[in-house]
Amino acid sequence: MSIDAVLARIDRDLDQSLERLFSLLRIPSISTDPAYAGSCREAAQWLADSLSELGFDASVRPTDGQPMVVAHYPAGSRDPEGRVLFYGHYDVQPVDPLELWESDPFEPRIATRPDGSKMIVARGAADDKGQLMTFVEAARAWIAETGGLPVPVTILFEGEEESGSPSLAPFLNANAEELEAGAALVCDTGMWDRDTPAISVSLRGMVTHEFTVTAADKDLHSGLFGGAARNPNHVVAKILADLHDADGRVTIPGFYDGVAETPADVRAQWDGLDFSEEAFLGQVGLKTPAGEAGRSVLEQIWARPTAEVNGMIGGYTGAGFKTVIPSQSSAKVSFRLVGEQDPGKLVAALQTFVRERLPDDCTVTFTSHGASPALKIPLDSEILQTGKAALAAEWGVDPLMIGMGGSIPIVGAFKSKLGMDTLLVGFGLDDDRIHSPNEKYEMSSFHKGMRSWARMLGML
Amino acid sequence: MSIDAVLARIDRDLDQSLERLFSLLRIPSISTDPAYAGSCREAAQWLADSLSELGFDASVRPTDGQPMVVAHYPAGSRDPEGRVLFYGHYDVQPVDPLELWESDPFEPRIATRPDGSKMIVARGAADDKGQLMTFVEAARAWIAETGGLPVPVTILFEGEEESGSPSLAPFLNANAEELEAGAALVCDTGMWDRDTPAISVSLRGMVTHEFTVTAADKDLHSGLFGGAARNPNHVVAKILADLHDADGRVTIPGFYDGVAETPADVRAQWDGLDFSEEAFLGQVGLKTPAGEAGRSVLEQIWARPTAEVNGMIGGYTGAGFKTVIPSQSSAKVSFRLVGEQDPGKLVAALQTFVRERLPDDCTVTFTSHGASPALKIPLDSEILQTGKAALAAEWGVDPLMIGMGGSIPIVGAFKSKLGMDTLLVGFGLDDDRIHSPNEKYEMSSFHKGMRSWARMLGML
Repeated sequence: MSIDAVLARIDRDLDQSLERLFSLLRIPSISTDPAYAGSCREAAQWLADSLSELGFDASVRPTDGQPMVVAHYPAGSRDPEGRVLFYGHYDVQPVDPLELWESDPFEPRIATRPDGSKMIVARGAADDKGQLMTFVEAARAWIAETGGLPVPVTILFEGEEESGSPSLAPFLNANAEELEAGAALVCDTGMWDRDTPAISVSLRGMVTHEFTVTAADKDLHSGLFGGAARNPNHVVAKILADLHDADGRVTIPGFYDGVAETPADVRAQWDGLDFSEEAFLGQVGLKTPAGEAGRSVLEQIWARPTAEVNGMIGGYTGAGFKTVIPSQSSAKVSFRLVGEQDPGKLVAALQTFVRERLPDDCTVTFTSHGASPALKIPLDSEILQTGKAALAAEWGVDPLMIGMGGSIPIVGAFKSKLGMDTLLVGFGLDDDRIHSPNEKYEMSSFHKGMRSWARMLGML
Repeated sequence: MSIDAVLARIDRDLDQSLERLFSLLRIPSISTDPAYAGSCREAAQWLADSLSELGFDASVRPTDGQPMVVAHYPAGSRDPEGRVLFYGHYDVQPVDPLELWESDPFEPRIATRPDGSKMIVARGAADDKGQLMTFVEAARAWIAETGGLPVPVTILFEGEEESGSPSLAPFLNANAEELEAGAALVCDTGMWDRDTPAISVSLRGMVTHEFTVTAADKDLHSGLFGGAARNPNHVVAKILADLHDADGRVTIPGFYDGVAETPADVRAQWDGLDFSEEAFLGQVGLKTPAGEAGRSVLEQIWARPTAEVNGMIGGYTGAGFKTVIPSQSSAKVSFRLVGEQDPGKLVAALQTFVRERLPDDCTVTFTSHGASPALKIPLDSEILQTGKAALAAEWGVDPLMIGMGGSIPIVGAFKSKLGMDTLLVGFGLDDDRIHSPNEKYEMSSFHKGMRSWARMLGML
């Protein structure tokens, strides 16, 4: 049976697989910052070249933002029959605060713990370059060992996942026929713990929005104008403070429309999981759940909507002090959505909420950075059963069906635009520090991740 | 009478006086930013060299921060009898936002209005390099024309006025004997309007303080942790929002201790002034007084204490979006003090106010950027009478006795450490954009300012 030979090759070629991953990690493909547009194109081209080498029919495809990579195997084939579509994203989060990194975020390195376990440290190691490469390298091993892949495969790599995926829906619409497949595989999620794989079956949606309040038409001196002139920092602080009530509930009118209570049996199942709130919060130096009062941490992060102020800035923020009353102050806020919450309605309600709190002499501008609804994955799909079996074979334990606090807009788009079910399998861990300094990916995740995909390809 | 010859020389040499001012304006002596420490030293040396050239006994004197310049005339003399001490500061505010400047802030230029009036545009043109040079150039004209100054003069230039004057009190203590004089002259204030000079007789005090709230020990991903982890942006926004009540009053307990109501006769006098709230606010694009309800703008800026958020920052504030829950968030706040408000008590009350609003898992650190009480200048001092007469002679109208929203810590220190009364005369205008982009100083302020000081030296 060829699967054993494929797995043996993965084991044997681990060092070369790592070298290829490192080449990709060295490209600073930060999609949200226009200064890195060239690096995003470089990462897309690197992936297309790698896939072409493997025999894929691969191309870099322009969009209004960062380009997509689309690749088909066997070359020239498009038939959706029995085909799987694999999705990942090559863009990464910004690296600031840079001074908290222990090494250059774009010079990947292997770190070894006292117990001998290893991890790959770099921006994008876990989110999502390390993850997408588990699939590419599994395909490489199949092709090298058997001369081909057991099923036809299309690969779609996006370069704007970290900035709200603005080009994704138009691209799927324009290329629906080419991208059609029997099911989709997405590798951008996590395991339950280091030894237990997981399949994500619910995803929160997300609205990301920014607003800027302007008062005077220039920065003012607080000695001359202080006490008489409107300070937009005060206005923004008040709006942000008003977002939550004393119980941690979001106060925007209509915010909880479409949010169902978690069913008692699901809650009971979560309460039965081996999950320690103390350990989860303790890994980042916290002790007390800070969200909605009266809910468990798992419910807070898997099943409840949130509002977070991800950034705020106004006035003088450099070294020392400047007695300025700024002309402008701004905030970036994001909302995680669950159930049937309507992203469009939330955006409108947020804008009303802000406008109602604007005093005289203030104006506001809004910038949308994306909006996508929450998702539930059907538990009875064929692809889900295959995924379960492959993960169980590789890890020796049944994968857990879990919720996920994050948002992956592509999954909804696959369903609505292409009619496909998605399997969400990934090998990240909660302590991978994605979006933070010193992001890492476990060597075991990378190695056994490749083996998991190799098995799954063999079972499809 | 020699004063006419001195004034004629000032008129004749205006271009050379401007050239010298431009040389000083070209030095980017930003005291609050450590990157400019070398430029601060350069500005101090430039001033000491200029004064030495005039025959002053001048030296640059190190402190723990930026250096002082001390100069005596005639050289070698120290006798306080009949001596005046002139104070100014050579340090300037930071220039950001740089993109709003119409020309390089440190490449001074002359701009001419359609009506032919001219202004000097540069960072520090009005605050305070242009102002201090009115005195230096007046002294230069006296010496050039008559071979000396009519009274002995000591000059003290500071380089930390824009960063809270931390070295000033220790320096005055250590050099009290050397700096003793009959009265002090300070040129860092404004005129009533372009044609009407003013003497400032009350000054607000100031407390500048910064605090940083820390929650998790690293930045977190809002998908993984959002809804469960404490977000310090929310904590800081709530604290800042709590600083004022709905009527614009500051809510820190004890804040208004020592604040007297403005006497009815003073308020009546202010109401009788030719002051338009609409015009004052309209010059910066505002319409509605935003401070304490039920008080006039003049009362708000001259006689009432304030709390302003001069800077706030937390999380991702670059281009695009980053779904981060930051580890830290911080704010810079300043308070203008009046009457008998105690700066030390306010700092303690502020810290308590912040600490009381810290939820679980949060810690806070504080940084003081200065604290000085409010001041009233006695209206019956000899120096005030001389100043009035000299200004009336130069401008053809009696100077107004006004309050001042800003804070000049030196004035209190001159009284408490050296027992001197101070005359606050300056030639700035409300629209000089000090601390803002495109700072300017009227050519008429510079020219007639020199002439005013020349007259005053002759009358002392």
